[in-house]
Amino acid sequence: MEPQFKTIGILAKTNHPNINNVLTILLNFLQQQQLKIVITEKIAECIQTNSTHVASLEEIGSICDLIISVGGDGTFLAAAHASVQAQIPLVGINLGQVGFLVDIYPQELCEKLQEILFGKYNLETRFLLQVQIVRNQQIIKQEHALNEVVIHRWITPSMIEISTYINGQLLNTQRSDGLIIATPTGSTAYSLSAGGPILHPTLNAMVLVPLNPHTFSNRPIVIDSSAQIEIRFGQTRQINALISCDHLEIPQVLMSDHILIKKYDTPIKILHPQGHDFFYTLRKKLNWSVNNNLP
Amino acid sequence: MEPQFKTIGILAKTNHPNINNVLTILLNFLQQQQLKIVITEKIAECIQTNSTHVASLEEIGSICDLIISVGGDGTFLAAAHASVQAQIPLVGINLGQVGFLVDIYPQELCEKLQEILFGKYNLETRFLLQVQIVRNQQIIKQEHALNEVVIHRWITPSMIEISTYINGQLLNTQRSDGLIIATPTGSTAYSLSAGGPILHPTLNAMVLVPLNPHTFSNRPIVIDSSAQIEIRFGQTRQINALISCDHLEIPQVLMSDHILIKKYDTPIKILHPQGHDFFYTLRKKLNWSVNNNLP
Amino acid sequence: MEPQFKTIGILAKTNHPNINNVLTILLNFLQQQQLKIVITEKIAECIQTNSTHVASLEEIGSICDLIISVGGDGTFLAAAHASVQAQIPLVGINLGQVGFLVDIYPQELCEKLQEILFGKYNLETRFLLQVQIVRNQQIIKQEHALNEVVIHRWITPSMIEISTYINGQLLNTQRSDGLIIATPTGSTAYSLSAGGPILHPTLNAMVLVPLNPHTFSNRPIVIDSSAQIEIRFGQTRQINALISCDHLEIPQVLMSDHILIKKYDTPIKILHPQGHDFFYTLRKKLNWSVNNNLP
Amino acid sequence: MEPQFKTIGILAKTNHPNINNVLTILLNFLQQQQLKIVITEKIAECIQTNSTHVASLEEIGSICDLIISVGGDGTFLAAAHASVQAQIPLVGINLGQVGFLVDIYPQELCEKLQEILFGKYNLETRFLLQVQIVRNQQIIKQEHALNEVVIHRWITPSMIEISTYINGQLLNTQRSDGLIIATPTGSTAYSLSAGGPILHPTLNAMVLVPLNPHTFSNRPIVIDSSAQIEIRFGQTRQINALISCDHLEIPQVLMSDHILIKKYDTPIKILHPQGHDFFYTLRKKLNWSVNNNLP
Repeated sequence: MEPQFKTIGILAKTNHPNINNVLTILLNFLQQQQLKIVITEKIAECIQTNSTHVASLEEIGSICDLIISVGGDGTFLAAAHASVQAQIPLVGINLGQVGFLVDIYPQELCEKLQEILFGKYNLETRFLLQVQIVRNQQIIKQEHALNEVVIHRWITPSMIEISTYINGQLLNTQRSDGLIIATPTGSTAYSLSAGGPILHPTLNAMVLVPLNPHTFSNRPIVIDSSAQIEIRFGQTRQINALISCDHLEIPQVLMSDHILIKKYDTPIKILHPQGHDFFYTLRKKLNWSVNNNLP
Repeated sequence: MEPQFKTIGILAKTNHPNINNVLTILLNFLQQQQLKIVITEKIAECIQTNSTHVASLEEIGSICDLIISVGGDGTFLAAAHASVQAQIPLVGINLGQVGFLVDIYPQELCEKLQEILFGKYNLETRFLLQVQIVRNQQIIKQEHALNEVVIHRWITPSMIEISTYINGQLLNTQRSDGLIIATPTGSTAYSLSAGGPILHPTLNAMVLVPLNPHTFSNRPIVIDSSAQIEIRFGQTRQINALISCDHLEIPQVLMSDHILIKKYDTPIKILHPQGHDFFYTLRKKLNWSVNNNLP
Repeated sequence: MEPQFKTIGILAKTNHPNINNVLTILLNFLQQQQLKIVITEKIAECIQTNSTHVASLEEIGSICDLIISVGGDGTFLAAAHASVQAQIPLVGINLGQVGFLVDIYPQELCEKLQEILFGKYNLETRFLLQVQIVRNQQIIKQEHALNEVVIHRWITPSMIEISTYINGQLLNTQRSDGLIIATPTGSTAYSLSAGGPILHPTLNAMVLVPLNPHTFSNRPIVIDSSAQIEIRFGQTRQINALISCDHLEIPQVLMSDHILIKKYDTPIKILHPQGHDFFYTLRKKLNWSVNNNLP
Repeated sequence: MEPQFKTIGILAKTNHPNINNVLTILLNFLQQQQLKIVITEKIAECIQTNSTHVASLEEIGSICDLIISVGGDGTFLAAAHASVQAQIPLVGINLGQVGFLVDIYPQELCEKLQEILFGKYNLETRFLLQVQIVRNQQIIKQEHALNEVVIHRWITPSMIEISTYINGQLLNTQRSDGLIIATPTGSTAYSLSAGGPILHPTLNAMVLVPLNPHTFSNRPIVIDSSAQIEIRFGQTRQINALISCDHLEIPQVLMSDHILIKKYDTPIKILHPQGHDFFYTLRKKLNWSVNNNLP
């Protein structure tokens, strides 16, 4: 029997104290399986290894048939961006602390990867958002986001006025620090800090969360993931806004620009070990243990 | 051309100062259309009218082919409960102030009803929740709710411990005053006061909102409306809980009871005037106007 | 040199697994110091001991010159209620997990008590609230609370309407599940679960926190602790409310009753080991550690 | 009898549609009283008037004995900054919509000013915050704020790590978008949008409100106004933060800078018409009317 995947790309959070240990175990395991291994330059700088290829993120995204992310959810986000065009499946290994996207612990790495390589996994798809910035009827910039798109006031001491249209219909005009549009994946990230609800990963929905809105009744609203969102700004003055897609920033968005946000055509594929339990991760990450020493 | 509906049931918020005016206009209009009219006893007590039938809510639910609710969202809820078994469509007339479910104003009543009677309407379906209370493996009580099911501590000064299972999988165990499970319809009612998000009415989802949880990270979670929810209590002491379905209360639920909640098979049908706009109602009800005199 | 305190009352959370160990160490230590020891009946039932006195909470409150509470914040609350009339100082020993009021760990018990007995301690006073229920111009019930007074809807499916007057001036009329009035001590208890802010223990202030208010802008408000608060109900129907003082409940408050709340004349005295740090306790209890594995 | 004030400075929100009307009435009234009037250049540009002096904000702050602010709370903030050094009392006239600081309506302007000029007023003092930025043991910048000091991440896609010390003692280290330190005056402004409580204006307290904190239990904390706050940053990388004092921004604060915040020595003095009621303003501004058409 042959492994399902032949060329394995690896991304890693190379500034983590435990990374060398975990990478050594991972590379040894993959070499024993006789797989072709492609690593990033950062990994090549921090670990001595033969029989590996060094490549840029773009190359990894085009030549591999599986990408392994070693680190936290942030590293996984970078891996997701690299993999999305080619629809390469992703596996997430954490560094001792579970993340929402990285659910294999270092100590079970070989066992779980063995299973995944030979087809024993749960395949999960997660959708991304596509954001387009339109200036004078032209798309001047296009990005995508697995977690969230954030529209944020920038270099202005006062709130910005944001009008949101859903499928061409006005939702509202709000004054606030900005607006988050998050996927279910992103609902447990920045959106949660801003007061948004948790969306189950399988939900075909996205959530709009205002940032510190002037009107208290501007509450998070959950809409279908098929909706087309358009953002316009109310100010006429030439102040600026800033758009973030996951952690990539697009500054100097003008008050006259329109922002279009919708579900991206191609989802990413995540391979989980069998028995993966989202609620378990949620309980771990959010410290949902019942404190038994209550008064 | 004949009207689509022949027998019209009417429910009304009879203790509202403006009710007699609106009912008079409504009854005159329906009589001119030569329709059979069935009213509740309460309405019969407050208004002089001939050529109408007086019936109980149950009868109205079985003999009419359209139910008109005159009042606020509360009256509409009662109408929904009366109509759900027979799947009779509902129309909501407000008393001067728009509600999420009652979108026809008294002054446009005749015009809008005329259109609806002759087939010019938007049909919307809204799902209900079904709740079953299981004691010693037996369903001892069953109810349904259009807005929300609330599990609440009752006659106990301390928080209750609630374990929630979704499709048989543990979500979490929380200490709190209780838990709301709301439909999209209910997401703009009690759930919103308790910190829940707004769910768009067409979303196939429900939201679980903890009431004053001991652990702050116990945040609202939105799940698919096909999920089966089971609630168990952590305490062994014989204190009680209370279940509310919309505004109907089921007291003296025991700590050993299990509560099962899922989507109810039969949705209700709401007829809106054409051009109905949920976001407009949202902006009106939540005072989402931008204050233009900000500093 | 003589110890400052001669007769020591002890209260304990007797259903905690670790309680026998801690009580044995505590009693041995106090007996070695030749102090007179008074314990509750519950303690007498769970531990074999000579040379101790058994007494009711009321007696303990009248004959001791120091009370030691062993358990969580709930046990300490009971001790506070027992001590307040006679102004006896309190010491709080936890059972392995720090509480806001119980800051001595079992393993440092002898050392810290030794210091406290001989005058090395930080004295902290905490004020209580006094609540009076007025029916037909007569005070029919009077209680006090160290943490909070809660006015709560009771056996009614709908919200109650509460009008709050501060020093005779209307603050507001709100529809909600109820209202919490918390001291700084109580600001880290139920009030925090309901969305209230943390008040530093030394602040001469109290906080009013609405419970799931119908109007979202009904936000917590912090006022001077010298203010006199009066609560009236808006309903004319004979439904009931319920008042909780810490964990003691006063049911069947009528809609026609007035509730008066103000600072209680006599504060309680807490003796802390020297170097006591409220912020440290806050960080511990609220898990305020920075997560270093952020993306 | 002579008026208490002789030289009246005027600031105005000159881009408001109603401003010319109100200024004309105001200037006529003051001229009839034979008072010396000093206006800003902006006012001089928008209204034709004789027998007035035009001066800069700084001059107005040094030569007047009363300052009248015509506009919203934002204009009043500017007036407060101009008046604070010379301790000149302030009167706030709104433009038809009440503000927390501007409580005289245009239509009652002459009557109320007449009373105030002849000593019939309620004097209220409000404290300000002083903020100092310390770099290499030197104070490189100093500002003050009537509403709030905000520390905010700037040109960085990720949260900043902020350590807060109160009177030299560590409160906590948090990851967030930033931190608001608000006075009671500011507690009804930006702080409220960010989830902070309302502080009664007379309270000797300030509130620390985290902006979208990574840890949900990082809740607003209210401390005594005599406390000295020091902020340090956790990052070692040379990213920047931004400090806002009311609406004045201090950009490019370094991660190695320390920020010191404390109560400013000199409060501002506000003159209110007699019978001024803070709770009335609160109810008006926050729409705290009870909706009587609840279900």
